[in-house]
Amino acid sequence: MLFLRRIFPIFDWLSVYRRADFAADSMAGLIVLFITVPQVIAYAFLAGLPPEAGLYAAILALVCYAVFGSSRTLAVGPTAIIAMMTLEATSEFASPGTEFYAEMAMKLGLVTGLVLLLLRVINFGAVISFLSHAVVSGFITAAAILIIANQLPAMLGVSSPAGTDVLAVLNHVVKEIGDLNLVSLAVGLGSLVLIWFCRSYLAGWLSSRGLSEVWVGALTKSGPMYAVIIAVAVVFFGSLGENLPIVGYIPTDLPVLRFSGISLTEIQMLLPSALLIAMVVFMESTSIGATVASKRREKIEPNQELISLGLANVGASIVGGFPVAGSFARTVINFHAGAVSQLASLITAALLIVTLVWLAGFFHYLPKSVLAAIIVISAMQLLDWHGIKKIFAFSRTDAVTFSVTFLAVLSLGVETGILTGISISFVLLIRSSSKPHIAVVGRWQGTEHFRNILRHEVEVFEKVLAVRIDESLYFVNTRYIERFILNKVADSPDLEHILLICTATNFIDTSGLEMLELLSENLEEVGVTLHLAEVKGLVMDKLKQTEFYSRMKGEIFFTTDIAMKSLLDRND
Amino acid sequence: MLFLRRIFPIFDWLSVYRRADFAADSMAGLIVLFITVPQVIAYAFLAGLPPEAGLYAAILALVCYAVFGSSRTLAVGPTAIIAMMTLEATSEFASPGTEFYAEMAMKLGLVTGLVLLLLRVINFGAVISFLSHAVVSGFITAAAILIIANQLPAMLGVSSPAGTDVLAVLNHVVKEIGDLNLVSLAVGLGSLVLIWFCRSYLAGWLSSRGLSEVWVGALTKSGPMYAVIIAVAVVFFGSLGENLPIVGYIPTDLPVLRFSGISLTEIQMLLPSALLIAMVVFMESTSIGATVASKRREKIEPNQELISLGLANVGASIVGGFPVAGSFARTVINFHAGAVSQLASLITAALLIVTLVWLAGFFHYLPKSVLAAIIVISAMQLLDWHGIKKIFAFSRTDAVTFSVTFLAVLSLGVETGILTGISISFVLLIRSSSKPHIAVVGRWQGTEHFRNILRHEVEVFEKVLAVRIDESLYFVNTRYIERFILNKVADSPDLEHILLICTATNFIDTSGLEMLELLSENLEEVGVTLHLAEVKGLVMDKLKQTEFYSRMKGEIFFTTDIAMKSLLDRND
Repeated sequence: MLFLRRIFPIFDWLSVYRRADFAADSMAGLIVLFITVPQVIAYAFLAGLPPEAGLYAAILALVCYAVFGSSRTLAVGPTAIIAMMTLEATSEFASPGTEFYAEMAMKLGLVTGLVLLLLRVINFGAVISFLSHAVVSGFITAAAILIIANQLPAMLGVSSPAGTDVLAVLNHVVKEIGDLNLVSLAVGLGSLVLIWFCRSYLAGWLSSRGLSEVWVGALTKSGPMYAVIIAVAVVFFGSLGENLPIVGYIPTDLPVLRFSGISLTEIQMLLPSALLIAMVVFMESTSIGATVASKRREKIEPNQELISLGLANVGASIVGGFPVAGSFARTVINFHAGAVSQLASLITAALLIVTLVWLAGFFHYLPKSVLAAIIVISAMQLLDWHGIKKIFAFSRTDAVTFSVTFLAVLSLGVETGILTGISISFVLLIRSSSKPHIAVVGRWQGTEHFRNILRHEVEVFEKVLAVRIDESLYFVNTRYIERFILNKVADSPDLEHILLICTATNFIDTSGLEMLELLSENLEEVGVTLHLAEVKGLVMDKLKQTEFYSRMKGEIFFTTDIAMKSLLDRND
Repeated sequence: MLFLRRIFPIFDWLSVYRRADFAADSMAGLIVLFITVPQVIAYAFLAGLPPEAGLYAAILALVCYAVFGSSRTLAVGPTAIIAMMTLEATSEFASPGTEFYAEMAMKLGLVTGLVLLLLRVINFGAVISFLSHAVVSGFITAAAILIIANQLPAMLGVSSPAGTDVLAVLNHVVKEIGDLNLVSLAVGLGSLVLIWFCRSYLAGWLSSRGLSEVWVGALTKSGPMYAVIIAVAVVFFGSLGENLPIVGYIPTDLPVLRFSGISLTEIQMLLPSALLIAMVVFMESTSIGATVASKRREKIEPNQELISLGLANVGASIVGGFPVAGSFARTVINFHAGAVSQLASLITAALLIVTLVWLAGFFHYLPKSVLAAIIVISAMQLLDWHGIKKIFAFSRTDAVTFSVTFLAVLSLGVETGILTGISISFVLLIRSSSKPHIAVVGRWQGTEHFRNILRHEVEVFEKVLAVRIDESLYFVNTRYIERFILNKVADSPDLEHILLICTATNFIDTSGLEMLELLSENLEEVGVTLHLAEVKGLVMDKLKQTEFYSRMKGEIFFTTDIAMKSLLDRND
């Protein structure tokens, strides 16, 4: 049973499930449904796919995650960012709207899921450590702008452009502006205003009527659903179906296996995009999951998340969906609506099936400009001006990383942009790590403490140079450290001993060992002896096995104080 | 004058130059000539170029470096590794032996020089920090094997293969083995044995005759020159010129400007290779330079080295050469022969011009298999079995990096191999950095010291969790730290305060700040307050400007002791 619980976290909460929990979960499941239906249809549209692709993906993602996920409240399914990445990646191989395109998007989701599972197998969830806050922020900001720009044609009721980049879309819109569809634009703008009004003003009004917080939250965030209902009603009763682009026929089939195999060539083709999407899926999902879990002193297990998100992607894809992730908006609604377990998600999934089978016809008359409006509002939530200001105020390096990532995503696309961002953040990290803090220290006021000679009035000696290196000794910094010491030796003709104080050295790699060996040898030739002090236990164990240790002329002292006393006493 | 000295280090030593120095430099310059002539002709041959390309490159590299270099004894010119990289890079665009190939090799050297100068301009010498000892070792070992394999055809006197990779060459050799030229093989093997004998046995014999160390070193390392002289004599007097592949006609022109412009497209084509070659040039040259400088308490200036090596490459190329670097073998000979300044290199350069003009005809009859033998011996010096054993004994991570780099260079070529090695070393570094050492600490025996609860018997409290993070807070580790703390909170129902002890936190980036903000907010919601202690001065200055600082409910304490006393006294 313990074994089963580890694989299927669902057993963890099912075994202690209470009747009151079910009431809470049912309510949350229903409330989440209202935001899920319009969002997933809209994100399928954003990804260049038919509405049912969004519904199928959402249903399977919710079910798979409910069974395997370690978060109690994460709501998984299509999201704006991942839909945009899907559009960009799949457009490389096929034209949006075609059946081949839908097939490639499915396969992209499958490979994304497999990548997540592979990351679990090789135990490499640390891959998200590659994404710094500045890179993520730059990427999300630029992606939001890309997403909004890509909704312009649908808003205006003109045809879709070929590319996804901002300039191509704007160019296309300017050219096609003559075909502007006023009905489309009016419905779209109306929806925008309605959703925006719900978010901004409805809450205050409802609260003043004495509604509970849960209901206020649910009602204000269901703006997209009102927009959908009103728009469908207007189009249907106003007989406007011929006058503007609408969603059209939606099959009422249940989600069934639509996967018919994938070739090795296709896997190779899709792998680079899938790898990046998997990273973003994992990053988005775990950060939302961890945030809501922490609010109830619950935990999420990153390794289990790789499995559950991997299976959610595989599940969502093989029924004809596309890549999925934890949705920020829907998770927060689920959490605040009082969901206590993933049963809420299973209820949402069941209701989605009902919607699909019985209400698909309703969405027939849904104008595409309403979907565009829903997407634009979602994308605007991604723009975090305050966060950007913080980056620029706090760190020059991160400001550079943000700007480079932002510009690269806008001009070169999401994938190349993220890769550029990751590269620049590492180059800047290495650049600063390659110059570690090194302090020459001296005895402080006759005590056993040794402090930086630049900051404190300390006693120093011509014969012995005591150097504290505030870093591990590894390939990124060994050259700098070596040069620092050699330059000190070149400048100090009376020097006889160098003492390296290793209080901050947590590990030494072979580059570090090689540096110590060469340094020790070269110093010996000019009559200077290299000693170490305060070497940590683990590092010492390693050093003891080396030739360097058995050969070195200098000593390894327990403390700096002992070392200085011993070295100053010598008459050599 | 000070300004001139900074740009032209040559003025530094010229102004204090003495008569005795000139005697020493002349002797060293002459001794280095004997090893330089056969080596640079051989390396030109290895790079797929005519002999004069090696001589031209050596002359200009020596002169440019002498004027601008910061090392007193570094000998710059063609080297085996750089020649191999030149062969691989240029073969992508042209067939070795053609005039177009020679032109591309020239342009490759020019772009390499420009990259080095650019690295100086953007102040990014830290780029060599990307190369760990394990990557360099794996790369050099595999490159040595590639170099040796590539000499097989010339040794056996068969035609050259199309590719440079080991399997292609072996395949080719097996196919062509019927055309085996016994004279070629005999001369090649004879040279191998002769050079090997000089290195291994001559030294002992000469020393026992009472020769000075300088002369013993010079004579034992001049094996290649003896091989050249003997082979030419045998071929010439034995009238064997028709019977085996020989070097043939060498123009006796002086090195003159042969550069006729380079297009932007060519620069783009050559840039990736040039970037890697520039890194290797800089890495090889500065490590040799630093080693010999340290033996005399002299310094080298990496920034100046970027300029001097950049100009040496530009100079060597525009006269019809190819990329150059500091030569390990020739530098060591120069140093031990007693060179005190770069005048030794200028003398070598002058003697090279004399050799070119008056003795070029002599090399006409030099068998190519002798060049192959010289190259094989040089490459064998690059194989450092002892160093490899050390890597495997000392660090599992570095052993993986070494193996991956080694196999990648052998199977995918030098460039892709190095890039693979750099990538794997960073992935492994990030992987380990993403899990920093975090210790939960407690009060040690009633003192003011707080130590790891896992290693020491210390006093702990249910209300307060004191956590020491042995790292800076930055994007690579923030997720791990956050999860560590949230998991502790989830596991400790009575916890009220968390104290982060920042003794080892040298900097905080925006990812770290964001983590602190979110953590502090999320913990507040479950009734836990986040505090900091022992924040370093620089970090504190930064923190004070943030919203986090003004908003945080917790305190920032000067020491852990003060913090614990204050927090345990509270009744909240």
